[in-house]
Amino acid sequence: MEFYEQILSLKEQFKTSDKFQLPGNFKNMVISGMGGSGIAGKIFQDLYNEKLLFVNESYDIPRWVDQYTLFIGISYSGNTEETLAALEAAIKAGAQTVSISSGGKISRMASTNVVVPGGLQPRSALGYLVSPLLNTFNIINSAGKERVYELLDELDKEHKFLDLVASEIVEDEKIPVLLTLPGFRSAGFRWKTQFNENAKILSFSLNFPELDHNDIMAFERSYLRERFYPIVIGDTTNSQMEKRISATSNLTGYKFKLLPVKGKNPVEKIMYAIHCADYVSYHASILRGLDPEDVSVIEKLKSELVK
Amino acid sequence: MEFYEQILSLKEQFKTSDKFQLPGNFKNMVISGMGGSGIAGKIFQDLYNEKLLFVNESYDIPRWVDQYTLFIGISYSGNTEETLAALEAAIKAGAQTVSISSGGKISRMASTNVVVPGGLQPRSALGYLVSPLLNTFNIINSAGKERVYELLDELDKEHKFLDLVASEIVEDEKIPVLLTLPGFRSAGFRWKTQFNENAKILSFSLNFPELDHNDIMAFERSYLRERFYPIVIGDTTNSQMEKRISATSNLTGYKFKLLPVKGKNPVEKIMYAIHCADYVSYHASILRGLDPEDVSVIEKLKSELVK
Repeated sequence: MEFYEQILSLKEQFKTSDKFQLPGNFKNMVISGMGGSGIAGKIFQDLYNEKLLFVNESYDIPRWVDQYTLFIGISYSGNTEETLAALEAAIKAGAQTVSISSGGKISRMASTNVVVPGGLQPRSALGYLVSPLLNTFNIINSAGKERVYELLDELDKEHKFLDLVASEIVEDEKIPVLLTLPGFRSAGFRWKTQFNENAKILSFSLNFPELDHNDIMAFERSYLRERFYPIVIGDTTNSQMEKRISATSNLTGYKFKLLPVKGKNPVEKIMYAIHCADYVSYHASILRGLDPEDVSVIEKLKSELVK
Repeated sequence: MEFYEQILSLKEQFKTSDKFQLPGNFKNMVISGMGGSGIAGKIFQDLYNEKLLFVNESYDIPRWVDQYTLFIGISYSGNTEETLAALEAAIKAGAQTVSISSGGKISRMASTNVVVPGGLQPRSALGYLVSPLLNTFNIINSAGKERVYELLDELDKEHKFLDLVASEIVEDEKIPVLLTLPGFRSAGFRWKTQFNENAKILSFSLNFPELDHNDIMAFERSYLRERFYPIVIGDTTNSQMEKRISATSNLTGYKFKLLPVKGKNPVEKIMYAIHCADYVSYHASILRGLDPEDVSVIEKLKSELVK
């Protein structure tokens, strides 16, 4: 499948009905995953609030993992070194384990192994990776999926605002800085990483209200300040957050771009904001004359590490 | 106290013996705090691994907070809007509560209120804010404190490497990017925020191994790449991490600065790395001809928000 078709396939992937059996007696959760696979756990963290959830991004696991922990390892390839090590440690600690992958070693390691369709880049398989979590925990139902499909389909057809953002960034060689509102950290992270991988542009994600306690001083007076391009992502209907955004913008002299996040509830809004990142980074890559699919440096690194 | 003296006082602050009474039956913890006060919780998170700990940076608290949660609100002024709201929500949820502050509203809100000496900038009061956590959870004893004192004292007298880093950043107008190794996220965050507040320089913190899954693509080919200044912070004695650092450096063509982190154990190493941030950012500020103490924009924002 062409890379652009892979991106477009997100809305279809999102409709899959994969679920896994939940153990009855878990008290906390860890989701372990890196890069394009790890984002699934981060989205889930923005949407799930019932039990304690730790999102893990390394080889090691927290010492408190035990038989009351539901440990979910996500690796699209099924062979991510960090995630395999973490899942192995979780098994040793007696945790109840689930894997989500398209195959590979991890699909033979956990007690429950969810296997999704393969052949895509991990960052283009996000719908497959996140759906089992959203389905299992009833975060979305089939009517909700239909609405997400429609929202993303609309976006696939009409993305003038995102084209403008991409062209402003590339023409003026700007560094996108995502400023997320509460509940949208995963979306900010997706924007950053899609700019990294697709467009090969450095990009950073910061969070309101924390950024008002430190970054704001630098936004006002840093050198290179004219080269940063701040984009606010999130639900701006909270009046205290609206106040913050406008005061931060006024005090720093930046005109923030505000992403118009569509959707009726958090899951719709996050999926919309996430898919926007796919577009804008794809177009930025094309405008730079680069291949958005190319992640050869990451591949080279992986082969260096196993030497 | 002059601002530079405030910075130097960290090693003394660290010797305080404040402790608080731990409830017997808590199952998880939340530490809530922003900016210069929030960093104390982040350091604790890098050092504590016994029970589930969530570090909160906003008004809201997780829905799972209940009577088995130990909720610690940290606000040096005692009047931080986000932390007051979070602590109030925790009290409503029935959590067992502790506050750490130099006074203000928060010092009358929790079940247990630790009051530390006032009169400093929050970011210069870190020793006072973090010590009650380290003391109470026995993360450090008095011999360990003596060693931290000596390490920081040594650093106070000899900081050529940090002076070099500061001058390279300011002379070439670079953007410092901290690349943290596992266990040193709080230190990377401190570097970033001290560059923000003291030197008024934009700065960002990324984490190994996650950055090898996305940022690495941008480090190799982004525009402005020559303007970023990557500094690796952490314990480089892990051979897989050493491999990663050198492969990442080779593949991206960056010569990373490696911070020589002194100390015999994690708490010593983190405190050393953190105090390095105080120096380098202070010197960068002086080299830029700016007042390191000035955080007038943050103050203005706070007054805008209560209007």
